[in-house]
Amino acid sequence: NHHCAFGAVQSISSERHDYLTDGFLAKSQADEVPARGYTLRITDSYKDVSGDVLAGLTEGMDLAERTKTIDRNIKKIVAEIEQQNPGKRAEVAEMFPGKTYVLFVYTYLRDVRLVYVPPRGIGNFGGEIDNWMWPRHTGDFSFMRVYVAPDGSPADYSPENVPFHPRKFLKVQPAGVEEGDFAFILGYPGRTYRHRTSDYLEYEYYYRMPYIANLFDWQISIMEEMGQDDREVAIRLASRIKGLANVMKNYRGKIQGIRRLDLIEKKRQEEAALQQFIDADPARKASCGTVLQEIGDVYKEMTAQAESELILSMLVRSSRVLTNAYTVFRGSQELQKPDLERQSSYMNRNIDRLKESLKEGLDDYNESIDKIFLRELLLQASELPKDQRVPAVDALLTSGDDERDIDTFIDEAYAKTMMGNYSEVLKALDRTPEEVGAMNDPFINLARDLAPTYEALRETNQRREGALTRLYAELVDVTQEFLKTSFIPDANRTLRLTYGTIKGYSPRDATYCSPITTLTGVLEKTTGEEPFDTPQKVIDLAKAKDYGRYKSAKLNDVPVAILYNMDTTGGNSGSPVLNARGELVGVNFDRAWEATINDYTWNERYSRSIAVDIRYVLWVTEKIGGADRLLKEMGVAG
Amino acid sequence: NHHCAFGAVQSISSERHDYLTDGFLAKSQADEVPARGYTLRITDSYKDVSGDVLAGLTEGMDLAERTKTIDRNIKKIVAEIEQQNPGKRAEVAEMFPGKTYVLFVYTYLRDVRLVYVPPRGIGNFGGEIDNWMWPRHTGDFSFMRVYVAPDGSPADYSPENVPFHPRKFLKVQPAGVEEGDFAFILGYPGRTYRHRTSDYLEYEYYYRMPYIANLFDWQISIMEEMGQDDREVAIRLASRIKGLANVMKNYRGKIQGIRRLDLIEKKRQEEAALQQFIDADPARKASCGTVLQEIGDVYKEMTAQAESELILSMLVRSSRVLTNAYTVFRGSQELQKPDLERQSSYMNRNIDRLKESLKEGLDDYNESIDKIFLRELLLQASELPKDQRVPAVDALLTSGDDERDIDTFIDEAYAKTMMGNYSEVLKALDRTPEEVGAMNDPFINLARDLAPTYEALRETNQRREGALTRLYAELVDVTQEFLKTSFIPDANRTLRLTYGTIKGYSPRDATYCSPITTLTGVLEKTTGEEPFDTPQKVIDLAKAKDYGRYKSAKLNDVPVAILYNMDTTGGNSGSPVLNARGELVGVNFDRAWEATINDYTWNERYSRSIAVDIRYVLWVTEKIGGADRLLKEMGVAG
Repeated sequence: NHHCAFGAVQSISSERHDYLTDGFLAKSQADEVPARGYTLRITDSYKDVSGDVLAGLTEGMDLAERTKTIDRNIKKIVAEIEQQNPGKRAEVAEMFPGKTYVLFVYTYLRDVRLVYVPPRGIGNFGGEIDNWMWPRHTGDFSFMRVYVAPDGSPADYSPENVPFHPRKFLKVQPAGVEEGDFAFILGYPGRTYRHRTSDYLEYEYYYRMPYIANLFDWQISIMEEMGQDDREVAIRLASRIKGLANVMKNYRGKIQGIRRLDLIEKKRQEEAALQQFIDADPARKASCGTVLQEIGDVYKEMTAQAESELILSMLVRSSRVLTNAYTVFRGSQELQKPDLERQSSYMNRNIDRLKESLKEGLDDYNESIDKIFLRELLLQASELPKDQRVPAVDALLTSGDDERDIDTFIDEAYAKTMMGNYSEVLKALDRTPEEVGAMNDPFINLARDLAPTYEALRETNQRREGALTRLYAELVDVTQEFLKTSFIPDANRTLRLTYGTIKGYSPRDATYCSPITTLTGVLEKTTGEEPFDTPQKVIDLAKAKDYGRYKSAKLNDVPVAILYNMDTTGGNSGSPVLNARGELVGVNFDRAWEATINDYTWNERYSRSIAVDIRYVLWVTEKIGGADRLLKEMGVAG
Repeated sequence: NHHCAFGAVQSISSERHDYLTDGFLAKSQADEVPARGYTLRITDSYKDVSGDVLAGLTEGMDLAERTKTIDRNIKKIVAEIEQQNPGKRAEVAEMFPGKTYVLFVYTYLRDVRLVYVPPRGIGNFGGEIDNWMWPRHTGDFSFMRVYVAPDGSPADYSPENVPFHPRKFLKVQPAGVEEGDFAFILGYPGRTYRHRTSDYLEYEYYYRMPYIANLFDWQISIMEEMGQDDREVAIRLASRIKGLANVMKNYRGKIQGIRRLDLIEKKRQEEAALQQFIDADPARKASCGTVLQEIGDVYKEMTAQAESELILSMLVRSSRVLTNAYTVFRGSQELQKPDLERQSSYMNRNIDRLKESLKEGLDDYNESIDKIFLRELLLQASELPKDQRVPAVDALLTSGDDERDIDTFIDEAYAKTMMGNYSEVLKALDRTPEEVGAMNDPFINLARDLAPTYEALRETNQRREGALTRLYAELVDVTQEFLKTSFIPDANRTLRLTYGTIKGYSPRDATYCSPITTLTGVLEKTTGEEPFDTPQKVIDLAKAKDYGRYKSAKLNDVPVAILYNMDTTGGNSGSPVLNARGELVGVNFDRAWEATINDYTWNERYSRSIAVDIRYVLWVTEKIGGADRLLKEMGVAG
């Protein structure tokens, strides 16, 4: 996808060579440039390790301890496998909580290079406005190539490296697909929550999603306001705004989806039927008669604490300096421990990523915005009810005028802190707890005061997770018994297959959207202004109907994007869409807005995903990019 | 339409009786309450008066004088007819500028009463968000009844009055219409500009509409910001925001429509063909060889002056106090003149309306907003290029720091002016020019200083109009000759008939909208929050599928709104939609967004208008309103 290559193109762009706007083509293989920080992951093998993961669990054990035991077991398995397979990365994926765990071994290739990227007016056409939307007209593709050492092993970038030759590769099918055709996808969908109960959905619907969506909405409006008067600020904040807007639009979509499908009520009815089934058999009733109620109790506890826990979930994250300070403070403690006992992000295998993410956080650092965001979260915390107070925040409120106290703290703390400076943060990460304490940085001090609250919350969450892994394992068993079927585990970033049909849908009353958009539709949306700034060459060729070999006879036009009822979610960006013969006919990049509900349920009316059509990929590559060498290499030259 | 009755319902609502939210039903005829300020207009007669209107025009006469002569002639005709027909109102409508004029005589009935209005969650369902949109689910109807004196003559409200009995009335057809059915509309469409040339469209597309849309967009954002912290301010500004948003959305729609249809280029090609036709005949070439070019010259002059003229067009209007001051200043001069020589709005027959509009302007007066708006327009004026300066604004700029000078003026002027007070404005309107001058009100002084600029602009516009009425008359003649057809004059608020079909459309690539929405669609959109706050009773009945006699067998649902390819524009609100037998099947209330282009051209793909379906009107009236007496009176009782 273009949106996946975006960062790499941005990093090689300058004012003189604005590859982001103009697109990038490596004229020859020698001109292919490194996409720093990019990796390619290959699934080498997988096997069930449920026994090892669940080893040592006992019936009546402390619930938080249960979670810690599972965590420890997983860390041990991973460490062992990575030791046995140098250079590989192992990951244990939870398939059914408390029940099924699978170990995946991955190869990471690290020398990824940019080959061809279309102009942004094609690759990001429609931008934020069209994000999550169908009909879609985004040429969201790019070509990258991965290199390996001359001996075929994974290697960092080197001019000596040679193109990687996979054991299998996909055949490109320039004829594409038509409405009604069968298609399938292999990909790595991120997270779904389909086996959760109605109480979980209620928590999401009434508490968590509205809180986050409203907060992000507000944060976006603040950042947009800041950007209005300062073009440079606007550019630096663009990607952060994009990230928040993506989540916000997703959440709003899911909220609408839950409402439209009456999903909570539907789940309640399913659960009532299940409860009847359980109660009908005395043995079953004895073993799991209260499983639904006990799961509900966990979510009810979360609901009762929602106000403070949601604020805490965003408090540290909303401020870059506080994030850094908290990481430094926690790091100084975690890094004292043996590797396997540390919180995952502080383990040796992950510490570089942690540092990278702190660095990225400071790339768009803006002190004014940081202050406004932190102020808002502190104010929210200052208004919490008595039984949910945050002691570290209360300690700031000394004068009786909370707003003034918070303003005073913020003014003084930002004036003094070093946590907005990456090299200082890096240095501090190497210090002992005593040295970090001696820094007397106001945000590190705040982090220190907040830490007990967060530690308690972590313990609480481990206890809840301990309860839920036990309960959900029971629930899945009895539900499969009841429905006389076996389930597909929730998506969890591991390899999955989904199949379906190229198919339109009716997103709302009196509206039908057909499943293939066209080049003519691109022109319709074109305004000349970002994000609808189609390159002139596309306009000219479209007006001249220069469709080449990529015309759909049915539509008498070049197809641009396709829609299908397959089951995808976040993480399926770039997944290949294959026809019945397993030939490449599109590249998945998004879902229709109504399909944000996929995270909770699959629905025949609403679950639709979106790919860029292979014919548009090839038309752009040939007519706009002039990248004949790539077409030849793919065996589709004219 | 509900949106037409809105003001009347608002004015009888209080905190105790919130008829706007809950709806209003007069239980019996005696309970029907006056809708103050509302009138009903009946077209009594019309006749061509082109000869009288164009009398006294000579070939080479001064162009501004030409416009003034036409104005004078029209005023004379109107005065004469109104004198001959006491109580009637006469209006002369321009059919083809400089060519055809028609005199209409109207009866105004003044005792209008509210009978039934549905709850706002039905009548304004979708609000601003759905405005100009299809698919639509607004029950935008209400019932009003007009009363006359016992002798049948027009009268102000009196308990003695009796219901008016028209010579003809429409039969209500509860069976409605289906997709593909013929239908027609009689109504009073406002203004269209279809016979204008490409140069006019360019001026609109590149200059006027973007300027106004951007300014309104900004004004709306200011008002919304002000309203965010103060609920009362928000309520008071709601209707002003609604008005601006309506225009802005309309203009943005037209801008998109001109672009999508490539309308300017299309007009250019038509004009080139016409020019060829003209040039091919020496006599024709001699008489009108330069007509297109001369019309173009007028618009080119407007384009050259666009910056200052657009600012001037909004400067006075953007500030309530400056509007009042300008009206007082101009009024003091105009009211010295004999009635027929005054500017139309200061004539005796119009002066009450003028006062009413000043009063309405102050209903939502907010000094902070008034300051911000005026400041912006003054700043814009301060940045005008040398050849377009406004002397009255320049006079404020004394220190070399324009922004500071404007701020200083604004602070002092608002502190001192009485023009924000309606009774002071009314008093001032009765004063002589000398007395008004002696008031030494800072805004009246500013109005006085601005007046020469506005007078010069008025003269310029009269000159342009003088040129255009002459030229367009020529253009229409030669174009009819060329196309061997006769034209329909542009809409101008006079009675028109349009016919067509109940028909869906494809507003954009890969999207088809069918022409009848349903009650199920209402539920789909319902969020419980305004403007999607469907009353619970509607939700319950819809879920119970209690469709009564109003179900469409085809849709198995109650139809809510219908779409058709008839030719409507602003002013068609409330026009009856009639089936092939002339029976009432809907009430027109809006257009699809793409049909904003109707103002410039009719287009089979995009020109679609929207009515509330008679079946929804009756279903709501029966099931929600319980207004059986009305159903009986209309002859549709069960």
